[in-house]
Amino acid sequence: MLSVAEARARIVGSLQPTGAEIVALAEASGRVLAAPVVARLAQPPHDVSAMDGFALRAADGAVGARLRVIGAAPAGHPFGGAIGPGEAVHVFTGSVMPEGADAVTAQEDAVSDDTSITLHEAVRAGRHIRRKGQDFHEGETLLEIGRRLTARDIGLAAAANHPWLAVHRRPVIAVLATGDEIAMPGETIPPGGIVSSNSHALAAFIRARGGVPIILPIAADDRAVIAATAEAASRADLLVTTGGASVGTHDLVQTGLGERGLEVDFWKIAMRPGKPLMFGHLGALPVLGVPGNPVSSLVCGLLFLKPAIERLSGLPGDAPPSEPARCTAALPANDHRADHLRATLARSADGVWDVTPFPVQDSSMLQRLALADALLLRAPNAPAEAEGAMVQVIRLAENGL
Amino acid sequence: MLSVAEARARIVGSLQPTGAEIVALAEASGRVLAAPVVARLAQPPHDVSAMDGFALRAADGAVGARLRVIGAAPAGHPFGGAIGPGEAVHVFTGSVMPEGADAVTAQEDAVSDDTSITLHEAVRAGRHIRRKGQDFHEGETLLEIGRRLTARDIGLAAAANHPWLAVHRRPVIAVLATGDEIAMPGETIPPGGIVSSNSHALAAFIRARGGVPIILPIAADDRAVIAATAEAASRADLLVTTGGASVGTHDLVQTGLGERGLEVDFWKIAMRPGKPLMFGHLGALPVLGVPGNPVSSLVCGLLFLKPAIERLSGLPGDAPPSEPARCTAALPANDHRADHLRATLARSADGVWDVTPFPVQDSSMLQRLALADALLLRAPNAPAEAEGAMVQVIRLAENGL
Repeated sequence: MLSVAEARARIVGSLQPTGAEIVALAEASGRVLAAPVVARLAQPPHDVSAMDGFALRAADGAVGARLRVIGAAPAGHPFGGAIGPGEAVHVFTGSVMPEGADAVTAQEDAVSDDTSITLHEAVRAGRHIRRKGQDFHEGETLLEIGRRLTARDIGLAAAANHPWLAVHRRPVIAVLATGDEIAMPGETIPPGGIVSSNSHALAAFIRARGGVPIILPIAADDRAVIAATAEAASRADLLVTTGGASVGTHDLVQTGLGERGLEVDFWKIAMRPGKPLMFGHLGALPVLGVPGNPVSSLVCGLLFLKPAIERLSGLPGDAPPSEPARCTAALPANDHRADHLRATLARSADGVWDVTPFPVQDSSMLQRLALADALLLRAPNAPAEAEGAMVQVIRLAENGL
Repeated sequence: MLSVAEARARIVGSLQPTGAEIVALAEASGRVLAAPVVARLAQPPHDVSAMDGFALRAADGAVGARLRVIGAAPAGHPFGGAIGPGEAVHVFTGSVMPEGADAVTAQEDAVSDDTSITLHEAVRAGRHIRRKGQDFHEGETLLEIGRRLTARDIGLAAAANHPWLAVHRRPVIAVLATGDEIAMPGETIPPGGIVSSNSHALAAFIRARGGVPIILPIAADDRAVIAATAEAASRADLLVTTGGASVGTHDLVQTGLGERGLEVDFWKIAMRPGKPLMFGHLGALPVLGVPGNPVSSLVCGLLFLKPAIERLSGLPGDAPPSEPARCTAALPANDHRADHLRATLARSADGVWDVTPFPVQDSSMLQRLALADALLLRAPNAPAEAEGAMVQVIRLAENGL
């Protein structure tokens, strides 16, 4: 059986980022840059005033000096002339510095009437001036390829005069749920059957991580049906199957797709929940088979599908970030499988996370997973830990789950 | 001047959640429930097998017992008959327990041929059975009103047989940028002007937080134009203006909207960056005026607009969560304004965040904000701190910024 890290590396290593597309700036938030954002202008574009006040020559800036106000330069309306000795121009935050001026006195540091000001504070050269290019220079690379764009980045790209950005196409990820026993919500449930939940949760997760989910029709437990349904998804960037990935008599995904040429890379991971994870290729289509039970399916989604989506989206595809927490319960020694205990988090008075695993960890219990805040990570063969030990956790909602 | 907390409380306290709408399950992720999700069935719907194996009577479960296999019950195809003494039925994970059976032996704990099995392990009553309703019971409330739905919640609602969910309508938030000096990206920039960035960044932030942004046309520095543009947004749930909220000669939002009946609740906060924050109402329309400079505008977005969007969306509207970090630099004593230092984060070897504020904190530097990971919080009149002091930070990307 592979380790979680090896399995992730093999999945991510076999995937290529999608191609680039051009999207409007307003649509680019959360997308991953496929070309750098280079400043098309300097910001600020000129030396500008950093205050509401008066632009003047520092040579005239002695306390008590009285200067003639020869005009105003509101933002967007630069002063047309030049400032000479004994002269000042009314400026505002962002106003272009008038020619001849080399300093600004703040409004509150001068007394003004309609035509003149008297300085209360000495003004030295350069005072209250924001220099051209202080934020960025024309031609400067502001945002690198492979960056997932934040709201701040969108503002920066706008300021750098980009109405369009080149980003990686959202990966299209088809989700195939199999099983004679499952029905879509609201539809007739077969005898002894249940309502499909994995495909809906996985689709929401895919969307939250920036992918485009396609929920394929539920495939009956029939190899030909499974194969035909999966082949309908051959133009997707990734096919995720749920259920049917273990070795039971009724686990038909591997055999059904195998007849169509599925090449299986691996199908067992030393982890709990979720041992029967399968990864392979059906022609050019990567196929990730996650277990059928809901908790395993979503834990595998977090550990393997998230990096896969990120890799397809132009990101490195790292493991979901873990962080330290203090365990409020003693933990038994672990066996050879990496364990992922469903747990709640609470901030303790000292600011550290307190993590409390649920006492029952049955992988069929979806409600328990929904109420969890994090997975508590237990390495293979980890020794027993006393209450209060520091452990690593992966937060769920924060990772799109 | 108000404190940050008082201002937030007054904003949030004046807002009401939007009404409910029905959306398809597939569209409900990230939305806030306006009605509880109640289980429409039990999960599992019957006692079911927890393993691939054989259902039998525990009375027959002695080591070495040989039982006749009278049928199979794959998932979705319950066994029609009943199990009698000396009989067993082949079952799979999730199979409905056949009538008469009260235990399951795992496949690996028995030797089977076509018609019979011999037990290798004793089987006690109840072994490997998942009881009806172990995950949830029919009629049980699974998800409460006011919960923001995760991908896991979508799976749980699906399992509970809900194809539709009642959620709060996405709040519509209009963004009005004012100023003669600003242009849309790619359009002609006026002399001495700059490209609009705040409205694009705020729109991306609003979308990331679950709102529907409307970017209004840029309003010239003219009271009538500002008022007319703002009034066109009267059906929005919130109007956000950027720029024009301070007291300079060219700050026309308050006067322009004032002529149309703007009632200002407050307009100064004891904070940096961002002192001139305005909140009020234009008729029934709440109006939040954030400063014009890009960093202040987005910091105010995080501190005030985020709780406002959450409140409109049906959530409490709490302050963005802060967490502890260790400061890698000494900090001077603070003045009477709460400070929000742009900073980078790195995990130290002991798992604690190390936070490093940028040495220059000019609020016009958008590139610096884009490269920041967090705001380092400095309370009003906070004393000086030595290098290594523990402080509180608010992470940016994790809060949608």
